[in-house]
Amino acid sequence: MDAWLNGNFVEKDTPALCLEDRGNTFGDGLFEVCRVLNRRPLFFKEHLQRMEVSAAYFRLNFPFSLEKLYEVSRELIERNGIQTGEVYYQLTRGKDANREHRIRPQNLTPTFFILALPLREINPKNWETGAQVYLFPDKRHLLCEHKTLNLFANVLAKNDANDRGGYEAMMYRKDAQGIYVTEGGSSSFFCVHNETLITPEIDNILPSVTRRKVLEYAASIGIPTIEKRVYLKEFLTAKEVFIASTVSKVMPVRAIEKRTFPTIGKITAVMMKEIERRIEENIRSQA
Amino acid sequence: MDAWLNGNFVEKDTPALCLEDRGNTFGDGLFEVCRVLNRRPLFFKEHLQRMEVSAAYFRLNFPFSLEKLYEVSRELIERNGIQTGEVYYQLTRGKDANREHRIRPQNLTPTFFILALPLREINPKNWETGAQVYLFPDKRHLLCEHKTLNLFANVLAKNDANDRGGYEAMMYRKDAQGIYVTEGGSSSFFCVHNETLITPEIDNILPSVTRRKVLEYAASIGIPTIEKRVYLKEFLTAKEVFIASTVSKVMPVRAIEKRTFPTIGKITAVMMKEIERRIEENIRSQA
Repeated sequence: MDAWLNGNFVEKDTPALCLEDRGNTFGDGLFEVCRVLNRRPLFFKEHLQRMEVSAAYFRLNFPFSLEKLYEVSRELIERNGIQTGEVYYQLTRGKDANREHRIRPQNLTPTFFILALPLREINPKNWETGAQVYLFPDKRHLLCEHKTLNLFANVLAKNDANDRGGYEAMMYRKDAQGIYVTEGGSSSFFCVHNETLITPEIDNILPSVTRRKVLEYAASIGIPTIEKRVYLKEFLTAKEVFIASTVSKVMPVRAIEKRTFPTIGKITAVMMKEIERRIEENIRSQA
Repeated sequence: MDAWLNGNFVEKDTPALCLEDRGNTFGDGLFEVCRVLNRRPLFFKEHLQRMEVSAAYFRLNFPFSLEKLYEVSRELIERNGIQTGEVYYQLTRGKDANREHRIRPQNLTPTFFILALPLREINPKNWETGAQVYLFPDKRHLLCEHKTLNLFANVLAKNDANDRGGYEAMMYRKDAQGIYVTEGGSSSFFCVHNETLITPEIDNILPSVTRRKVLEYAASIGIPTIEKRVYLKEFLTAKEVFIASTVSKVMPVRAIEKRTFPTIGKITAVMMKEIERRIEENIRSQA
Protein backbone atom coordinates (compact mmCIF):
# COMPACT_ATOMS: atom_id res chain seq x y z
CA MET A 1 0.00 0.00 0.00
CA ASP A 2 1.18 3.51 -0.76
CA ALA A 3 1.31 6.67 1.29
CA TRP A 4 2.08 10.21 0.16
CA LEU A 5 4.82 12.07 2.00
CA ASN A 6 6.00 15.61 1.32
CA GLY A 7 5.21 15.48 -2.36
CA ASN A 8 6.03 11.85 -3.18
CA PHE A 9 4.28 8.53 -3.18
CA VAL A 10 6.10 6.10 -0.88
CA GLU A 11 5.52 2.57 0.31
CA LYS A 12 3.31 2.97 3.41
CA ASP A 13 5.13 0.51 5.65
CA THR A 14 8.68 1.53 4.77
CA PRO A 15 10.48 3.68 7.35
CA ALA A 16 10.13 7.22 6.08
CA LEU A 17 10.21 9.45 9.12
CA CYS A 18 13.19 10.79 11.04
CA LEU A 19 13.43 9.93 14.73
CA GLU A 20 13.52 13.64 15.59
CA ASP A 21 10.45 14.61 13.63
CA ARG A 22 8.63 16.83 16.12
CA GLY A 23 5.42 14.90 15.50
CA ASN A 24 7.17 11.89 16.96
CA THR A 25 9.01 13.56 19.84
CA PHE A 26 6.57 16.31 20.90
CA GLY A 27 3.23 15.56 19.25
CA ASP A 28 3.92 18.92 17.59
CA GLY A 29 1.39 18.51 14.80
CA LEU A 30 -2.16 18.02 13.60
CA PHE A 31 -4.22 15.40 11.80
CA GLU A 32 -7.50 14.95 9.97
CA VAL A 33 -9.50 11.92 8.87
CA CYS A 34 -12.00 11.85 5.99
CA ARG A 35 -14.35 9.00 5.24
CA VAL A 36 -13.87 7.54 1.75
CA LEU A 37 -17.01 6.58 -0.10
CA ASN A 38 -17.14 5.55 -3.73
CA ARG A 39 -13.39 6.38 -3.85
CA ARG A 40 -13.92 9.99 -2.84
CA PRO A 41 -12.97 11.79 0.39
CA LEU A 42 -16.10 13.00 2.17
CA PHE A 43 -16.22 16.63 3.33
CA PHE A 44 -12.61 17.06 2.26
CA LYS A 45 -12.71 20.84 2.25
CA GLU A 46 -14.27 21.14 5.71
CA HIS A 47 -11.62 18.84 7.22
CA LEU A 48 -8.61 20.39 5.54
CA GLN A 49 -9.77 23.93 6.18
CA ARG A 50 -9.96 23.09 9.87
CA MET A 51 -6.36 21.86 9.68
CA GLU A 52 -5.33 25.11 7.98
CA VAL A 53 -6.95 27.15 10.75
CA SER A 54 -5.24 25.15 13.50
CA ALA A 55 -1.92 25.25 11.66
CA ALA A 56 -2.10 29.04 11.66
CA TYR A 57 -2.95 29.01 15.38
CA PHE A 58 0.12 26.91 16.19
CA ARG A 59 2.31 28.68 13.62
CA LEU A 60 2.82 25.46 11.67
CA ASN A 61 3.60 25.94 8.00
CA PHE A 62 0.86 24.46 5.82
CA PRO A 63 2.89 23.39 2.81
CA PHE A 64 0.36 22.43 0.10
CA SER A 65 -2.75 23.93 -1.42
CA LEU A 66 -6.07 22.20 -0.79
CA GLU A 67 -6.42 21.72 -4.54
CA LYS A 68 -3.16 19.82 -4.65
CA LEU A 69 -4.07 17.75 -1.57
CA TYR A 70 -7.45 16.87 -3.02
CA GLU A 71 -5.90 15.71 -6.26
CA VAL A 72 -3.30 13.64 -4.38
CA SER A 73 -5.99 12.15 -2.12
CA ARG A 74 -7.97 10.97 -5.12
CA GLU A 75 -4.85 9.44 -6.66
CA LEU A 76 -3.78 7.72 -3.43
CA ILE A 77 -7.28 6.28 -2.98
CA GLU A 78 -7.09 4.90 -6.52
CA ARG A 79 -3.61 3.46 -6.03
CA ASN A 80 -4.67 1.67 -2.86
CA GLY A 81 -8.02 0.59 -4.29
CA ILE A 82 -9.99 2.04 -1.40
CA GLN A 83 -13.65 1.89 -2.39
CA THR A 84 -14.87 2.54 1.17
CA GLY A 85 -12.42 3.59 3.83
CA GLU A 86 -10.53 6.48 5.38
CA VAL A 87 -7.98 9.07 4.32
CA TYR A 88 -5.65 10.24 7.06
CA TYR A 89 -3.74 13.55 6.87
CA GLN A 90 -0.92 14.51 9.22
CA LEU A 91 1.05 17.74 9.44
CA THR A 92 3.96 18.19 11.85
CA ARG A 93 6.45 20.96 12.42
CA GLY A 94 9.11 18.74 10.86
CA LYS A 95 12.49 17.46 11.87
CA ASP A 96 14.56 19.17 14.54
CA ALA A 97 18.32 19.55 14.21
CA ASN A 98 18.48 18.04 17.71
CA ARG A 99 15.44 17.27 19.83
CA GLU A 100 14.54 20.33 21.87
CA HIS A 101 11.25 22.03 22.87
CA ARG A 102 12.51 25.32 21.50
CA ILE A 103 11.56 25.73 17.84
CA ARG A 104 14.60 26.71 15.84
CA PRO A 105 15.32 27.50 13.26
CA GLN A 106 11.82 28.92 12.85
CA ASN A 107 11.74 27.73 9.24
CA LEU A 108 11.78 23.97 9.81
CA THR A 109 10.45 22.06 6.82
CA PRO A 110 7.08 20.65 7.86
CA THR A 111 6.20 16.99 7.41
CA PHE A 112 2.94 16.29 5.62
CA PHE A 113 1.73 12.80 4.83
CA ILE A 114 -1.45 11.12 3.67
CA LEU A 115 -2.64 7.56 4.16
CA ALA A 116 -5.56 5.94 2.36
CA LEU A 117 -6.78 2.97 4.34
CA PRO A 118 -9.64 0.49 4.33
CA LEU A 119 -12.36 1.31 6.84
CA ARG A 120 -11.44 0.14 10.33
CA GLU A 121 -13.33 -2.97 11.41
CA ILE A 122 -16.66 -1.98 12.96
CA ASN A 123 -19.44 -4.39 13.76
CA PRO A 124 -22.44 -3.22 11.65
CA LYS A 125 -24.69 -4.02 14.62
CA ASN A 126 -23.45 -0.76 16.10
CA TRP A 127 -25.56 1.05 13.51
CA GLU A 128 -28.38 -1.50 13.38
CA THR A 129 -29.15 -1.82 17.08
CA GLY A 130 -26.86 0.81 18.62
CA ALA A 131 -23.49 1.01 20.32
CA GLN A 132 -22.56 0.24 23.90
CA VAL A 133 -20.60 3.16 25.36
CA TYR A 134 -18.81 3.55 28.67
CA LEU A 135 -17.89 6.56 30.77
CA PHE A 136 -14.26 7.58 31.25
CA PRO A 137 -12.68 10.70 32.79
CA ASP A 138 -11.61 13.28 30.24
CA LYS A 139 -7.88 13.45 30.96
CA ARG A 140 -7.07 15.59 27.96
CA HIS A 141 -5.28 18.91 27.73
CA LEU A 142 -6.67 22.35 26.99
CA LEU A 143 -5.93 22.19 23.27
CA CYS A 144 -8.98 20.09 22.41
CA GLU A 145 -10.39 22.65 19.97
CA HIS A 146 -7.60 21.54 17.65
CA LYS A 147 -7.00 18.08 16.23
CA THR A 148 -3.49 17.69 17.66
CA LEU A 149 -1.41 14.53 17.83
CA ASN A 150 -1.55 14.59 21.66
CA LEU A 151 -3.98 11.70 21.82
CA PHE A 152 -2.71 9.54 24.66
CA ALA A 153 -5.73 10.37 26.85
CA ASN A 154 -8.09 9.51 23.98
CA VAL A 155 -6.24 6.24 23.47
CA LEU A 156 -6.68 5.35 27.15
CA ALA A 157 -10.37 6.23 27.10
CA LYS A 158 -11.21 4.31 23.94
CA ASN A 159 -9.22 1.26 24.93
CA ASP A 160 -10.90 1.17 28.30
CA ALA A 161 -14.29 1.08 26.54
CA ASN A 162 -13.05 -1.46 23.99
CA ASP A 163 -11.63 -3.71 26.71
CA ARG A 164 -15.06 -3.71 28.35
CA GLY A 165 -16.68 -4.73 25.06
CA GLY A 166 -17.89 -1.23 24.21
CA TYR A 167 -17.57 0.81 21.05
CA GLU A 168 -16.80 4.24 22.44
CA ALA A 169 -15.78 6.04 25.65
CA MET A 170 -17.83 9.04 26.68
CA MET A 171 -15.47 11.38 28.47
CA TYR A 172 -16.48 13.63 31.33
CA ARG A 173 -15.13 16.59 33.28
CA LYS A 174 -16.31 18.22 36.47
CA ASP A 175 -17.26 21.80 37.29
CA ALA A 176 -18.83 23.45 40.32
CA GLN A 177 -22.22 22.11 39.27
CA GLY A 178 -21.09 18.52 38.84
CA ILE A 179 -20.03 16.06 36.16
CA TYR A 180 -20.60 16.93 32.53
CA VAL A 181 -19.97 14.88 29.41
CA THR A 182 -17.64 16.40 26.82
CA GLU A 183 -17.30 14.06 23.88
CA GLY A 184 -16.35 10.55 22.86
CA GLY A 185 -12.77 9.32 22.49
CA SER A 186 -13.09 10.08 18.78
CA SER A 187 -16.65 11.33 18.35
CA SER A 188 -19.07 13.98 19.50
CA PHE A 189 -22.52 13.17 20.83
CA PHE A 190 -26.10 14.35 20.79
CA CYS A 191 -28.96 13.62 23.13
CA VAL A 192 -32.66 14.22 22.77
CA HIS A 193 -34.87 15.90 25.35
CA ASN A 194 -38.32 17.28 24.46
CA GLU A 195 -37.83 16.56 20.76
CA THR A 196 -34.76 18.81 20.82
CA LEU A 197 -31.21 17.81 19.90
CA ILE A 198 -28.72 18.83 22.57
CA THR A 199 -24.95 18.73 22.13
CA PRO A 200 -22.08 20.27 24.12
CA GLU A 201 -21.02 23.75 23.14
CA ILE A 202 -17.46 24.17 21.80
CA ASP A 203 -15.62 24.59 25.07
CA ASN A 204 -12.35 22.70 24.88
CA ILE A 205 -13.91 20.08 22.65
CA LEU A 206 -13.30 19.56 18.95
CA PRO A 207 -15.31 21.65 16.50
CA SER A 208 -16.23 18.40 14.82
CA VAL A 209 -17.17 18.45 11.14
CA THR A 210 -19.84 15.78 11.61
CA ARG A 211 -21.26 17.57 14.67
CA ARG A 212 -21.54 20.77 12.62
CA LYS A 213 -23.25 18.87 9.80
CA VAL A 214 -25.74 17.27 12.18
CA LEU A 215 -26.64 20.68 13.63
CA GLU A 216 -27.03 22.10 10.14
CA TYR A 217 -29.09 19.18 8.78
CA ALA A 218 -31.30 19.11 11.87
CA ALA A 219 -32.06 22.80 11.50
CA SER A 220 -32.81 22.33 7.81
CA ILE A 221 -35.50 19.74 8.55
CA GLY A 222 -37.02 21.61 11.46
CA ILE A 223 -35.50 19.80 14.46
CA PRO A 224 -34.56 22.32 17.15
CA THR A 225 -30.99 22.19 18.47
CA ILE A 226 -29.23 23.52 21.55
CA GLU A 227 -25.48 23.76 22.18
CA LYS A 228 -24.72 23.77 25.89
CA ARG A 229 -22.91 21.93 28.66
CA VAL A 230 -24.53 18.50 29.15
CA TYR A 231 -24.45 17.25 32.72
CA LEU A 232 -24.34 13.55 33.44
CA LYS A 233 -27.91 13.44 34.70
CA GLU A 234 -29.25 15.02 31.52
CA PHE A 235 -27.12 12.61 29.50
CA LEU A 236 -28.37 9.53 31.33
CA THR A 237 -32.02 10.58 31.29
CA ALA A 238 -32.09 11.50 27.61
CA LYS A 239 -34.78 9.90 25.49
CA GLU A 240 -32.22 9.20 22.77
CA VAL A 241 -28.47 9.45 22.47
CA PHE A 242 -26.29 9.12 19.41
CA ILE A 243 -22.64 9.67 18.61
CA ALA A 244 -21.40 11.45 15.51
CA SER A 245 -18.05 11.28 13.79
CA THR A 246 -16.36 10.88 10.44
CA VAL A 247 -16.00 7.16 10.96
CA SER A 248 -19.22 6.49 12.90
CA LYS A 249 -21.36 8.98 10.95
CA VAL A 250 -24.55 9.03 13.07
CA MET A 251 -24.54 5.97 15.32
CA PRO A 252 -27.28 5.27 17.86
CA VAL A 253 -26.31 4.48 21.42
CA ARG A 254 -27.97 1.36 22.83
CA ALA A 255 -26.43 1.55 26.30
CA ILE A 256 -24.44 3.95 28.46
CA GLU A 257 -22.82 1.70 31.04
CA LYS A 258 -25.93 -0.17 32.32
CA ARG A 259 -28.49 2.42 31.26
CA THR A 260 -30.10 0.95 28.13
CA PHE A 261 -32.22 2.35 25.31
CA PRO A 262 -34.77 -0.22 24.10
CA THR A 263 -34.89 0.92 20.44
CA ILE A 264 -33.31 3.40 18.09
CA GLY A 265 -34.95 6.73 18.83
CA LYS A 266 -37.17 8.54 16.36
CA ILE A 267 -34.95 11.59 15.91
CA THR A 268 -31.81 9.44 15.75
CA ALA A 269 -33.37 7.44 12.92
CA VAL A 270 -34.28 10.64 11.09
CA MET A 271 -30.75 11.99 11.48
CA MET A 272 -29.17 8.71 10.32
CA LYS A 273 -31.25 8.87 7.18
CA GLU A 274 -30.63 12.57 6.65
CA ILE A 275 -26.86 12.31 7.00
CA GLU A 276 -26.75 9.41 4.54
CA ARG A 277 -28.68 11.50 2.03
CA ARG A 278 -26.34 14.47 2.47
CA ILE A 279 -23.23 12.29 2.32
CA GLU A 280 -24.42 10.82 -0.96
CA GLU A 281 -24.98 14.34 -2.22
CA ASN A 282 -21.43 15.37 -1.27
CA ILE A 283 -19.92 12.29 -2.89
CA ARG A 284 -22.00 12.71 -6.06
CA SER A 285 -20.85 16.32 -6.34
CA GLN A 286 -17.25 15.04 -6.60
CA ALA A 287 -18.03 13.09 -9.78
CA MET B 1 25.81 11.03 14.13
CA ASP B 2 24.42 7.69 15.20
CA ALA B 3 21.26 6.70 17.01
CA TRP B 4 20.28 3.33 18.40
CA LEU B 5 16.94 1.90 17.32
CA ASN B 6 15.43 -1.41 18.40
CA GLY B 7 18.78 -3.12 18.87
CA ASN B 8 20.81 -1.53 16.07
CA PHE B 9 22.96 1.50 15.55
CA VAL B 10 21.57 3.61 12.72
CA GLU B 11 22.42 6.95 11.16
CA LYS B 12 20.52 9.50 13.29
CA ASP B 13 19.16 11.63 10.45
CA THR B 14 18.15 8.80 8.13
CA PRO B 15 14.41 8.04 7.98
CA ALA B 16 13.95 5.08 10.31
CA LEU B 17 10.42 5.32 11.64
CA CYS B 18 7.17 4.16 10.04
CA LEU B 19 4.49 6.78 9.46
CA GLU B 20 2.05 4.77 11.57
CA ASP B 21 4.30 4.38 14.58
CA ARG B 22 1.92 5.16 17.43
CA GLY B 23 4.45 7.56 18.89
CA ASN B 24 4.03 9.63 15.76
CA THR B 25 0.26 9.35 15.32
CA PHE B 26 -0.99 9.26 18.94
CA GLY B 27 1.90 10.33 21.16
CA ASP B 28 1.46 6.79 22.51
CA GLY B 29 4.81 6.59 24.24
CA LEU B 30 7.30 7.86 26.81
CA PHE B 31 10.69 9.51 26.90
CA GLU B 32 13.59 10.25 29.24
CA VAL B 33 16.59 12.56 29.06
CA CYS B 34 19.86 12.08 30.97
CA ARG B 35 22.61 14.63 31.21
CA VAL B 36 25.94 13.36 29.85
CA LEU B 37 29.03 14.37 31.78
CA ASN B 38 32.48 13.00 31.16
CA ARG B 39 30.86 10.66 28.60
CA ARG B 40 28.58 9.06 31.16
CA PRO B 41 24.78 9.30 31.55
CA LEU B 42 23.92 10.97 34.84
CA PHE B 43 21.35 9.26 37.09
CA PHE B 44 20.72 6.69 34.39
CA LYS B 45 19.01 4.20 36.66
CA GLU B 46 16.63 6.74 38.20
CA HIS B 47 15.51 7.92 34.77
CA LEU B 48 15.08 4.54 33.18
CA GLN B 49 13.34 3.08 36.20
CA ARG B 50 10.80 5.87 35.98
CA MET B 51 10.21 4.92 32.35
CA GLU B 52 9.73 1.29 33.35
CA VAL B 53 7.12 2.28 35.93
CA SER B 54 5.19 4.44 33.46
CA ALA B 55 5.45 1.77 30.77
CA ALA B 56 3.78 -0.69 33.13
CA TYR B 57 1.07 1.89 33.91
CA PHE B 58 0.27 2.37 30.21
CA ARG B 59 0.77 -1.31 29.37
CA LEU B 60 3.65 -0.54 27.04
CA ASN B 61 6.15 -3.36 26.57
CA PHE B 62 9.56 -2.37 27.87
CA PRO B 63 11.77 -4.34 25.51
CA PHE B 64 15.32 -4.11 26.92
CA SER B 65 16.99 -4.59 30.28
CA LEU B 66 18.47 -1.53 31.98
CA GLU B 67 21.87 -3.23 31.87
CA LYS B 68 21.65 -3.52 28.10
CA LEU B 69 20.42 0.07 27.73
CA TYR B 70 23.21 1.37 29.92
CA GLU B 71 25.83 -0.44 27.88
CA VAL B 72 24.31 0.85 24.64
CA SER B 73 24.13 4.40 26.02
CA ARG B 74 27.82 4.34 26.84
CA GLU B 75 28.65 3.04 23.37
CA LEU B 76 26.44 5.58 21.60
CA ILE B 77 27.99 8.41 23.62
CA GLU B 78 31.43 7.20 22.55
CA ARG B 79 30.44 6.84 18.90
CA ASN B 80 29.06 10.38 18.81
CA GLY B 81 31.93 11.80 20.85
CA ILE B 82 29.62 13.42 23.38
CA GLN B 83 31.79 14.64 26.24
CA THR B 84 29.07 16.84 27.73
CA GLY B 85 25.54 16.55 26.45
CA GLU B 86 22.28 14.66 26.62
CA VAL B 87 21.03 11.13 26.05
CA TYR B 88 17.42 10.87 24.91
CA TYR B 89 15.38 7.65 25.27
CA GLN B 90 12.03 7.08 23.62
CA LEU B 91 9.65 4.15 23.91
CA THR B 92 6.44 3.91 21.88
CA ARG B 93 3.80 1.23 21.48
CA GLY B 94 5.14 0.60 17.99
CA LYS B 95 3.67 0.50 14.53
CA ASP B 96 -0.02 -0.05 13.92
CA ALA B 97 -1.30 -2.24 11.10
CA ASN B 98 -3.48 0.75 10.18
CA ARG B 99 -3.74 3.91 12.27
CA GLU B 100 -6.50 3.46 14.85
CA HIS B 101 -6.90 4.43 18.53
CA ARG B 102 -7.74 0.83 19.38
CA ILE B 103 -4.63 -1.15 20.27
CA ARG B 104 -4.54 -4.35 18.32
CA PRO B 105 -3.07 -6.72 18.11
CA GLN B 106 -2.12 -6.30 21.77
CA ASN B 107 1.38 -7.55 21.03
CA LEU B 108 2.63 -4.74 18.82
CA THR B 109 6.42 -4.58 18.71
CA PRO B 110 7.44 -1.48 20.66
CA THR B 111 9.80 1.10 19.22
CA PHE B 112 12.74 2.02 21.42
CA PHE B 113 15.41 4.46 20.36
CA ILE B 114 18.26 6.38 21.91
CA LEU B 115 19.95 9.60 20.80
CA ALA B 116 23.21 10.97 22.18
CA LEU B 117 23.40 14.69 21.50
CA PRO B 118 25.58 17.65 22.37
CA LEU B 119 24.13 19.80 25.14
CA ARG B 120 21.52 22.20 23.80
CA GLU B 121 22.74 25.79 23.55
CA ILE B 122 22.25 27.55 26.89
CA ASN B 123 23.69 30.92 27.77
CA PRO B 124 25.96 30.27 30.81
CA LYS B 125 24.72 33.57 32.27
CA ASN B 126 21.56 31.69 33.22
CA TRP B 127 23.60 29.95 35.89
CA GLU B 128 25.89 32.86 36.69
CA THR B 129 23.31 35.58 37.25
CA GLY B 130 20.04 33.67 36.98
CA ALA B 131 17.35 32.98 34.41
CA GLN B 132 14.45 35.16 33.31
CA VAL B 133 11.23 33.16 33.46
CA TYR B 134 7.70 33.98 32.34
CA LEU B 135 4.29 32.77 33.42
CA PHE B 136 2.12 30.71 31.08
CA PRO B 137 -1.14 28.79 31.65
CA ASP B 138 -0.65 25.08 32.22
CA LYS B 139 -2.64 23.67 29.31
CA ARG B 140 -1.48 20.12 29.80
CA HIS B 141 -3.46 16.93 30.25
CA LEU B 142 -3.96 14.85 33.38
CA LEU B 143 -1.12 12.44 32.58
CA CYS B 144 1.64 14.74 33.82
CA GLU B 145 2.95 12.26 36.37
CA HIS B 146 4.36 10.37 33.40
CA LYS B 147 6.86 11.58 30.86
CA THR B 148 4.63 11.07 27.82
CA LEU B 149 5.20 12.32 24.29
CA ASN B 150 2.12 14.58 24.56
CA LEU B 151 4.18 17.74 24.84
CA PHE B 152 2.42 20.25 22.63
CA ALA B 153 1.33 22.35 25.63
CA ASN B 154 4.92 22.34 26.96
CA VAL B 155 6.17 23.40 23.54
CA LEU B 156 3.74 26.33 23.48
CA ALA B 157 4.70 27.40 27.00
CA LYS B 158 8.46 27.22 26.46
CA ASN B 159 8.34 28.94 23.10
CA ASP B 160 6.25 31.75 24.51
CA ALA B 161 8.94 32.32 27.14
CA ASN B 162 11.73 31.97 24.58
CA ASP B 163 10.04 34.42 22.21
CA ARG B 164 9.94 36.95 25.06
CA GLY B 165 13.65 36.44 25.66
CA GLY B 166 13.20 34.17 28.66
CA TYR B 167 14.69 30.82 29.49
CA GLU B 168 11.71 28.96 30.92
CA ALA B 169 7.92 29.16 31.23
CA MET B 170 6.44 28.70 34.69
CA MET B 171 3.06 27.08 34.18
CA TYR B 172 0.05 27.71 36.40
CA ARG B 173 -3.36 26.24 37.09
CA LYS B 174 -6.28 27.56 39.07
CA ASP B 175 -8.23 26.06 41.95
CA ALA B 176 -10.89 27.43 44.29
CA GLN B 177 -8.19 29.30 46.24
CA GLY B 178 -6.60 30.93 43.21
CA ILE B 179 -3.69 30.54 40.83
CA TYR B 180 -0.92 28.10 41.69
CA VAL B 181 2.32 27.36 39.90
CA THR B 182 2.86 23.76 38.82
CA GLU B 183 6.22 23.45 37.09
CA GLY B 184 8.32 24.76 34.24
CA GLY B 185 7.89 23.75 30.62
CA SER B 186 10.66 21.21 31.20
CA SER B 187 11.73 21.77 34.80
CA SER B 188 10.45 21.77 38.35
CA PHE B 189 10.96 24.68 40.71
CA PHE B 190 11.76 25.50 44.31
CA CYS B 191 11.21 28.66 46.27
CA VAL B 192 12.57 29.74 49.62
CA HIS B 193 10.51 31.15 52.47
CA ASN B 194 11.84 31.29 56.05
CA GLU B 195 15.01 29.38 55.13
CA THR B 196 12.81 26.51 53.95
CA LEU B 197 12.73 25.00 50.45
CA ILE B 198 9.20 24.74 49.11
CA THR B 199 8.25 22.83 45.97
CA PRO B 200 4.88 21.64 44.62
CA GLU B 201 3.68 18.25 45.74
CA ILE B 202 3.31 15.56 43.06
CA ASP B 203 -0.20 16.33 41.92
CA ASN B 204 -0.36 15.97 38.15
CA ILE B 205 3.22 17.16 37.81
CA LEU B 206 6.25 15.07 36.91
CA PRO B 207 8.01 13.16 39.68
CA SER B 208 11.20 14.78 38.47
CA VAL B 209 14.50 13.03 39.16
CA THR B 210 16.30 16.33 39.79
CA ARG B 211 13.49 17.54 42.07
CA ARG B 212 13.79 14.35 44.10
CA LYS B 213 17.57 14.75 44.30
CA VAL B 214 17.27 18.36 45.46
CA LEU B 215 14.86 17.34 48.22
CA GLU B 216 17.17 14.53 49.27
CA TYR B 217 20.35 16.63 49.19
CA ALA B 218 18.69 19.51 51.04
CA ALA B 219 17.56 17.15 53.79
CA SER B 220 21.06 15.67 54.01
CA ILE B 221 22.60 19.07 54.71
CA GLY B 222 19.91 20.22 57.10
CA ILE B 223 17.78 22.47 54.93
CA PRO B 224 14.10 21.92 55.71
CA THR B 225 11.80 21.14 52.77
CA ILE B 226 8.05 21.24 52.23
CA GLU B 227 6.08 19.73 49.33
CA LYS B 228 2.78 21.53 48.83
CA ARG B 229 0.75 23.55 46.38
CA VAL B 230 2.51 26.88 45.73
CA TYR B 231 0.15 29.76 45.03
CA LEU B 232 1.23 32.61 42.81
CA LYS B 233 1.53 35.06 45.66
CA GLU B 234 3.87 32.75 47.57
CA PHE B 235 5.86 32.22 44.40
CA LEU B 236 6.24 35.93 43.67
CA THR B 237 7.10 36.88 47.24
CA ALA B 238 9.70 34.14 47.73
CA LYS B 239 13.12 35.21 48.91
CA GLU B 240 14.74 32.92 46.35
CA VAL B 241 13.50 30.86 43.43
CA PHE B 242 15.36 28.30 41.37
CA ILE B 243 14.43 25.79 38.72
CA ALA B 244 15.69 22.22 38.65
CA SER B 245 15.97 19.79 35.77
CA THR B 246 18.25 17.33 34.07
CA VAL B 247 19.41 19.97 31.63
CA SER B 248 19.30 23.02 33.92
CA LYS B 249 20.49 21.18 37.04
CA VAL B 250 19.92 23.87 39.72
CA MET B 251 19.49 27.22 37.99
CA PRO B 252 18.75 30.44 39.88
CA VAL B 253 15.86 32.61 38.75
CA ARG B 254 16.76 36.26 38.32
CA ALA B 255 13.30 37.46 37.29
CA ILE B 256 9.72 36.19 37.13
CA GLU B 257 8.10 38.46 34.59
CA LYS B 258 9.01 41.88 36.06
CA ARG B 259 9.61 40.72 39.63
CA THR B 260 13.40 40.61 39.98
CA PHE B 261 15.81 39.01 42.42
CA PRO B 262 18.91 41.19 42.96
CA THR B 263 21.39 38.35 43.60
CA ILE B 264 21.61 34.60 43.70
CA GLY B 265 20.06 33.52 46.99
CA LYS B 266 22.01 31.89 49.77
CA ILE B 267 20.17 28.56 49.74
CA THR B 268 20.17 28.48 45.94
CA ALA B 269 23.94 28.88 45.96
CA VAL B 270 24.28 26.09 48.50
CA MET B 271 22.07 23.79 46.42
CA MET B 272 23.96 24.60 43.21
CA LYS B 273 27.19 23.61 44.90
CA GLU B 274 25.70 20.54 46.53
CA ILE B 275 24.17 19.18 43.34
CA GLU B 276 27.47 19.64 41.48
CA ARG B 277 29.22 17.66 44.18
CA ARG B 278 26.68 14.85 44.01
CA ILE B 279 26.67 14.81 40.21
CA GLU B 280 30.44 14.42 40.22
CA GLU B 281 30.03 11.58 42.68
CA ASN B 282 27.52 9.81 40.45
CA ILE B 283 29.70 10.25 37.36
CA ARG B 284 32.82 9.06 39.20
CA SER B 285 30.99 5.94 40.37
CA GLN B 286 30.51 5.00 36.70
CA ALA B 287 34.25 4.81 36.08
